Amino acid sequence: MGEQTLRILGIDPGSLVTGFGVVERVGSAVHHVAHGTLRPPRTEGLASRLAFIHRGLSEVVASYEPELVVVEKAFVGSNPRTALALGQARGAALAVLGAAGLTIDELTPQEIKRAVAGTGGADKSQVQKMVKRLLGLDTEPAEDAADALAAAICRGHVGRLAGLARGPRPRGRRPRSEYVVRRAR
Amino acid sequence: MGEQTLRILGIDPGSLVTGFGVVERVGSAVHHVAHGTLRPPRTEGLASRLAFIHRGLSEVVASYEPELVVVEKAFVGSNPRTALALGQARGAALAVLGAAGLTIDELTPQEIKRAVAGTGGADKSQVQKMVKRLLGLDTEPAEDAADALAAAICRGHVGRLAGLARGPRPRGRRPRSEYVVRRAR
Repeated sequence: MGEQTLRILGIDPGSLVTGFGVVERVGSAVHHVAHGTLRPPRTEGLASRLAFIHRGLSEVVASYEPELVVVEKAFVGSNPRTALALGQARGAALAVLGAAGLTIDELTPQEIKRAVAGTGGADKSQVQKMVKRLLGLDTEPAEDAADALAAAICRGHVGRLAGLARGPRPRGRRPRSEYVVRRAR
Repeated sequence: MGEQTLRILGIDPGSLVTGFGVVERVGSAVHHVAHGTLRPPRTEGLASRLAFIHRGLSEVVASYEPELVVVEKAFVGSNPRTALALGQARGAALAVLGAAGLTIDELTPQEIKRAVAGTGGADKSQVQKMVKRLLGLDTEPAEDAADALAAAICRGHVGRLAGLARGPRPRGRRPRSEYVVRRAR
């Protein structure tokens, strides 16, 4: 009688670095499975760099067979050139997920930060620290991988988080027991 | 002693419609090979639509084995949301070309229109008419396919066009003989 498991992939696409993180929800616990970053060689042309993202993410999907994917909702800002560059990286990444028939959730950076660090205004370094702690990692993941893991963790706890959002916001750090996490075997 | 041939693929990526056109340069002539549009089902989710573009263009590249690719340079405008959506379609498309190791030229819409219609301010319908005429087609291609064919034609004549750009601009319609085109067998 094993517990229900759900394999979740988080992605943080970017034109320079695309972070990914895989976690597994087992019952009410979230385990770390894998994480990393895809960094297309800057010396290559645009199409080649986009192919690098597409190929790398295809390998991640084939290796870890996620059932759900969470992607950070694009923050477009006010610069159309930046939005185009981000869009291109997202397009190369999301095409992989569509081809694999995967269901995608989009969460805002604020939702993701609030879920792991207790506040939507948490900075990169706070997210890295909390992800390391929640998943019982030996070292902090790189920024973009930490963001991707945070997105996956957020989705792993989405039922619980929805409950929290309705209740009173706890002050300061949440009790450890709210996120029961264990390291991957 | 056959003439040197060069197979050129033109692409006009878009989030709703992606046009493609294939021509072959044989000596100083440009032949039509194929053209069409990729229209992802609007009822599908974003990732699935991007996968549709990626898969469709992969089939085009596998079928027609182009040696060169010309892509319309993105006109980003002032709206970051529009730029993001265009970027995503371009990312899904360009990843295919990068994976195939293809060389990509980017040309502005103005350069392309000037090449086929004599003026950078030509409208969609003028481009369709001129592409039909230059390639000896029976019917006008759809707008996005016409733009893609125009980009490919433009690249097929790039040496000649560079020469034209240096000389005096001819008034009105260019003589037919400047673009020797024949229909594909």
